[in-house]
Amino acid sequence: MVTPMQLLLNDYQAHDAINEGKAFANSNIALIKYWGKRDADLNLPITDSLSIHLPGLGTEASVRILDGDCHQISIDGFALGTDHAAFKGLNNYLTAISDITKHHYHLSLRFTIPVAAGFASSASCFASIALACNDLHQWNLSTKNLSIMARLGSGSACRSIEAGFCHWHAGESDNGLDSYATQLDLTWPELCIGLLHIDNTPKPYSSRLAMSHTQKTSFLYQAWPTQVAHDLKVVQQAINTHDFQALGETAEHNAESMHACMSSAKPALFYSQGNTLAAKAQVFKAREQGIPMYYTQDAGPNLKCLFLQHDLDAVLDVFPNLQVIQPFGDAGE
Amino acid sequence: MVTPMQLLLNDYQAHDAINEGKAFANSNIALIKYWGKRDADLNLPITDSLSIHLPGLGTEASVRILDGDCHQISIDGFALGTDHAAFKGLNNYLTAISDITKHHYHLSLRFTIPVAAGFASSASCFASIALACNDLHQWNLSTKNLSIMARLGSGSACRSIEAGFCHWHAGESDNGLDSYATQLDLTWPELCIGLLHIDNTPKPYSSRLAMSHTQKTSFLYQAWPTQVAHDLKVVQQAINTHDFQALGETAEHNAESMHACMSSAKPALFYSQGNTLAAKAQVFKAREQGIPMYYTQDAGPNLKCLFLQHDLDAVLDVFPNLQVIQPFGDAGE
Repeated sequence: MVTPMQLLLNDYQAHDAINEGKAFANSNIALIKYWGKRDADLNLPITDSLSIHLPGLGTEASVRILDGDCHQISIDGFALGTDHAAFKGLNNYLTAISDITKHHYHLSLRFTIPVAAGFASSASCFASIALACNDLHQWNLSTKNLSIMARLGSGSACRSIEAGFCHWHAGESDNGLDSYATQLDLTWPELCIGLLHIDNTPKPYSSRLAMSHTQKTSFLYQAWPTQVAHDLKVVQQAINTHDFQALGETAEHNAESMHACMSSAKPALFYSQGNTLAAKAQVFKAREQGIPMYYTQDAGPNLKCLFLQHDLDAVLDVFPNLQVIQPFGDAGE
Repeated sequence: MVTPMQLLLNDYQAHDAINEGKAFANSNIALIKYWGKRDADLNLPITDSLSIHLPGLGTEASVRILDGDCHQISIDGFALGTDHAAFKGLNNYLTAISDITKHHYHLSLRFTIPVAAGFASSASCFASIALACNDLHQWNLSTKNLSIMARLGSGSACRSIEAGFCHWHAGESDNGLDSYATQLDLTWPELCIGLLHIDNTPKPYSSRLAMSHTQKTSFLYQAWPTQVAHDLKVVQQAINTHDFQALGETAEHNAESMHACMSSAKPALFYSQGNTLAAKAQVFKAREQGIPMYYTQDAGPNLKCLFLQHDLDAVLDVFPNLQVIQPFGDAGE
């Protein structure tokens, strides 16, 4: 049987490798969420999704060919034991590659973002590995094929190959070769993301498990694809026209609906903590006071605020410790 | 045009009144929730629902005919001003009755349960008024018609005319004469309800508004009727067979899904507070430790725990301040 990785890489196996492949990939925050898979092995989603990248926050991967019969993996300089929570996923990914290249690897990862706390560290992680392997082996894969390759490690990683707004097309084929992200040819220099760190300890359940449990047990999830199709159109239009209110309202609604799907699972899954609820109440209050700010939330207790650069001071009055990201650089105000 | 109250009461208008009509109605807790209306004026629901009564917790109503041109209403001995949040609803309800009887009323209400905090005080309130008026005017309405009459004040009040497990049939007719509650001819002496008081201050938005906002703006709500139909069957069967796990799991799932509908409204509605989340985590932990307990939650931050009498000591170890209710009396263990 041909593996999904073979479908991508078979043509490239003969290329010569350089000494070290290196790459940095940004993590990304979904404005329209990815929740639910039509194929769990290939990370093929039920719906499209749409993200914005977080420049500078992500993962640096370095990969070298190793003389040995197993892979070696280190994170932030520490060798990963086989019993580490992240080992199996990373090792399986490298094995899918080495099945084709017939090499074992030393993989070194460095994170500039908290791991497993809902900051999409797995997205930047697998994107950086795909990019680093492409560099090592001089494959010159297209961004489309790199996106597919990253997706095989973690679904949302397909949106971390390119920067800016990225649209992951769910695709329809069984082999997943039509399920990858493309960059929107649009920028929004005024747009700011504020990372609100509420608790950066690893989350109680992985998003992979939470997603599967939701799909299996939530009745309300039946309506999720309809919502995503609607929200995606609204957000695309909002990005086109720089309609911030439509972007913010829809992104917030979409995120809350994803969490609603989880809390309607049986038994319920919650990523919010008391401080998450308190922070949301502060955002609602700020809006009542005329500050146009919204939030989105991933599989963790932290929030990501959305606002425009000219409201930065007002937003920092609400959340003085906000980590402010400008995906498209400074708008020069 | 014939009003809904006239449909019920026209045959009775000539009856003689006694000096004072009095009644106590228990509040009730829905195990299968009522959320969403097909007719907002008549409080006709989208789905069936099923409740258990809380003996001794509810509302005592006393009603007298008043010489005057407006109604007088008092709660716990204090006269209600026309600007009080509860005045309009109560006054409108009395007016619907006085349109037929041509009398004005003095209505005195006493509550043995916190008001507007998600303890179904409006259910017992309107049920007690319907019963007290029936007493005052010696109408001898059937329980069916009393249930319909209570429903016109507050939907869930139709489940507070009788005790035990009550099933509110949504009905199909436009006039609502087929939308009322019937008592299940089943008891469960072992069943305990534990009221966990987290915050008894009035809730930030009425359930009436929250319900309407959910129906208008939540995509996920589309799947709610399907869930209710499923959950209702499971809970009816669980009551029949005294299958506590099925009852608890389904009631908890149903409540969380109702709240998920609210949090997927645009903008999101939350009744949970930080302490609500913490209490839910304690329930999950207790279950992991082998204590079979579940919770349900209404439009407020408080929880109602479900457990069996033989686990009372273990449950009180988890929540020492729990207010324990035995709807069917002591099981005699």
